[in-house]
Amino acid sequence: MVPLHVLHELSISTPSKIVLVVLDGLGGFPDPATGKTELETARTPHLDDLARRSNCGLTQAVAPGISPGSGPAHLALFGYDPIVHNVGRGILSALGIGFEVGPDDLCARMNFATIDERGVITDRRAGRISTELNRRLVEKLRTIKLPGVQLFVETESGHRAAVIFRGPGLSDRLTDTDPQREGLPPLQVEPIGDDPAARRSAELANEFVRQAAALLKDERPANFVLLRGFARYPNIPKFTETFKLKAGAIAVYPMYRGLARLVGMDVLEHGESLEDEVASLERHWDAYEFFFLHYKNTDTTGEDGNFAAKVAAIEEFDAVLPRILALRPDVLAITGDHSTPSRLRSHSWHPVPLLVHSQWCIPDGPDGVDGFNERACRRGSLGVLPAQQLMPLLMGHALKLERYGA
Amino acid sequence: MVPLHVLHELSISTPSKIVLVVLDGLGGFPDPATGKTELETARTPHLDDLARRSNCGLTQAVAPGISPGSGPAHLALFGYDPIVHNVGRGILSALGIGFEVGPDDLCARMNFATIDERGVITDRRAGRISTELNRRLVEKLRTIKLPGVQLFVETESGHRAAVIFRGPGLSDRLTDTDPQREGLPPLQVEPIGDDPAARRSAELANEFVRQAAALLKDERPANFVLLRGFARYPNIPKFTETFKLKAGAIAVYPMYRGLARLVGMDVLEHGESLEDEVASLERHWDAYEFFFLHYKNTDTTGEDGNFAAKVAAIEEFDAVLPRILALRPDVLAITGDHSTPSRLRSHSWHPVPLLVHSQWCIPDGPDGVDGFNERACRRGSLGVLPAQQLMPLLMGHALKLERYGA
Repeated sequence: MVPLHVLHELSISTPSKIVLVVLDGLGGFPDPATGKTELETARTPHLDDLARRSNCGLTQAVAPGISPGSGPAHLALFGYDPIVHNVGRGILSALGIGFEVGPDDLCARMNFATIDERGVITDRRAGRISTELNRRLVEKLRTIKLPGVQLFVETESGHRAAVIFRGPGLSDRLTDTDPQREGLPPLQVEPIGDDPAARRSAELANEFVRQAAALLKDERPANFVLLRGFARYPNIPKFTETFKLKAGAIAVYPMYRGLARLVGMDVLEHGESLEDEVASLERHWDAYEFFFLHYKNTDTTGEDGNFAAKVAAIEEFDAVLPRILALRPDVLAITGDHSTPSRLRSHSWHPVPLLVHSQWCIPDGPDGVDGFNERACRRGSLGVLPAQQLMPLLMGHALKLERYGA
Repeated sequence: MVPLHVLHELSISTPSKIVLVVLDGLGGFPDPATGKTELETARTPHLDDLARRSNCGLTQAVAPGISPGSGPAHLALFGYDPIVHNVGRGILSALGIGFEVGPDDLCARMNFATIDERGVITDRRAGRISTELNRRLVEKLRTIKLPGVQLFVETESGHRAAVIFRGPGLSDRLTDTDPQREGLPPLQVEPIGDDPAARRSAELANEFVRQAAALLKDERPANFVLLRGFARYPNIPKFTETFKLKAGAIAVYPMYRGLARLVGMDVLEHGESLEDEVASLERHWDAYEFFFLHYKNTDTTGEDGNFAAKVAAIEEFDAVLPRILALRPDVLAITGDHSTPSRLRSHSWHPVPLLVHSQWCIPDGPDGVDGFNERACRRGSLGVLPAQQLMPLLMGHALKLERYGA
């Protein structure tokens, strides 16, 4: 892999435009009745035609067999090594609710839970309380005062919330309080290693839990909170600086908008539909050299186990593809962050179809890829491409990379 | 990647012979009129026939999207990681003019330039002076005396030259004097980091520039010099020691001869034509176990944007291939260091066709590769092979590698 600082040295700013379309959870799995995947089932004339005129392959965010979360999968697509540059669960929780995470923030995922009178956890999810109740309890927790830090408590949904400690000198080298099993008492937050910042952060987190327990002691079933996934604002090189790109992000879901902001992209405003997203692309076309366009429905339908709905989501994207092509991007890449087969109802490790279109592709040709799906793309010239190698490939095709070495 | 020291441990010296043919800038791009690349257009009966009886694939020197310079691309083909083992521009400049770079040398690329009376650079290339004038000015600069080092100033061509400071204890942790833009004053050479050797080297370089400016002050337009790409003799393990090979290099252009010498190969003497190069191979056949045969015209014709001339250069190589095969090498590899599509008139990132022939190949077979070109080789069994993995593959096929581990 080429280190980011080398990519930074090679990158040059030019007016050519790159569009990276991420169809979340794109890859699927065959329906046993037909033997065809969601992509193979969907009627996608525009994608199939484009695949025949492009270079195809499959992306793999982490490694064979590894099902990536959305955080590492997107970071890989943005050119980062997802093992070196990980973003902790606490940060992703905060980003997922649209919280603007800053450099002094220490974030944790919080679950409401139930403990009995002996102090043993009887339900790690407090009976999956309603989001409405969650909001009411969060209001109580917002009265907690901690020395030297500003505190944010934010409802996610159901029993899930995010806690953000904001202040200088915090550390995320901290253990979880969630023992991951019922029938055990909650754990104390412990510093990992002998670091004063971690010790102080652990004390703050434990003090938060103490005050929360006092405030919630008469609630049922949500009379306790569990904290896990402590994570500071990641110190990662900005995508926009590494590749010297003015970059705009088009995404409906907060987490993807947050991830894009984290790496330096401008988050563009638009409505909630895919049509709205494409309209935003059209509207902002002149202002950016790179666009990240994220489409969520291919993933949510897969997570729901709804094969037909995922097929329909894919077809919905196919219908807007001509509008993207009409903008004549110099380089267009279409792929997913990971697979979400309807049959698995979850993220999977299967490599994800990829298409790269530019005037500088040597097209795979008629005997190669005859459509845009898991099996056709295997025959493409890009092979199974580590997702983190995609950005340099797009930069090369956009003629935005200088020669490496003389 | 297998580290070089492990390859060294596994390598055994045997009489079997490997020939690595590098057709510089081999890979191309389709002519829009025909849809065929230079290789697909060329009539290459011998290469096509050999491809069908070999293992084929594509080599990639650095990573997807990265267009390599000749230095890193050749080092990769010789088995080095081109990110770890880079060779600086100053060294390549010196090698390119046939200067025998030694272990005590600090090399820099020098440009003649024009500065005005305020000391501002008005032309970084001094109006691209003639090579003849360059030679005359270089004679003047050779009178410069510096304490404790021997100085060499060597014409490249036009406004370009190389400066070599020879002496113990020099460092190349130095910044350039070329501000890369006109309208600015030249920069001082500064040491990078707090290192006495770098400080002394910076002083020597700055003193050279001062004396040069004094000697050139009445010249127009070349009244100044700019230095960049300071590079010491690279401290890399010798190819010949790593692989325990007696290796001969056959190349017309000085830079490739210099690179081969740098890694420990004997540079063989011959005339300027491809026929002469093959005659040298025949003449030295008994004396070496490894031959690096470099053919430049596939690159120069691509850089010239001359599709037809590149086709002819490929056909010229095809015509001599039977003579190479007649020597019955145990392993023959044919590839390029990088692509140089005529349409781009420069190095590109596209992977380069590769063929490996030996009695220990399982041939790709009739349903695989039907010719030697960019698209046919994609269907070969070697896939897209990182160029630095080629040498171990050739050593394996030559039965020159012991088993790894018991």
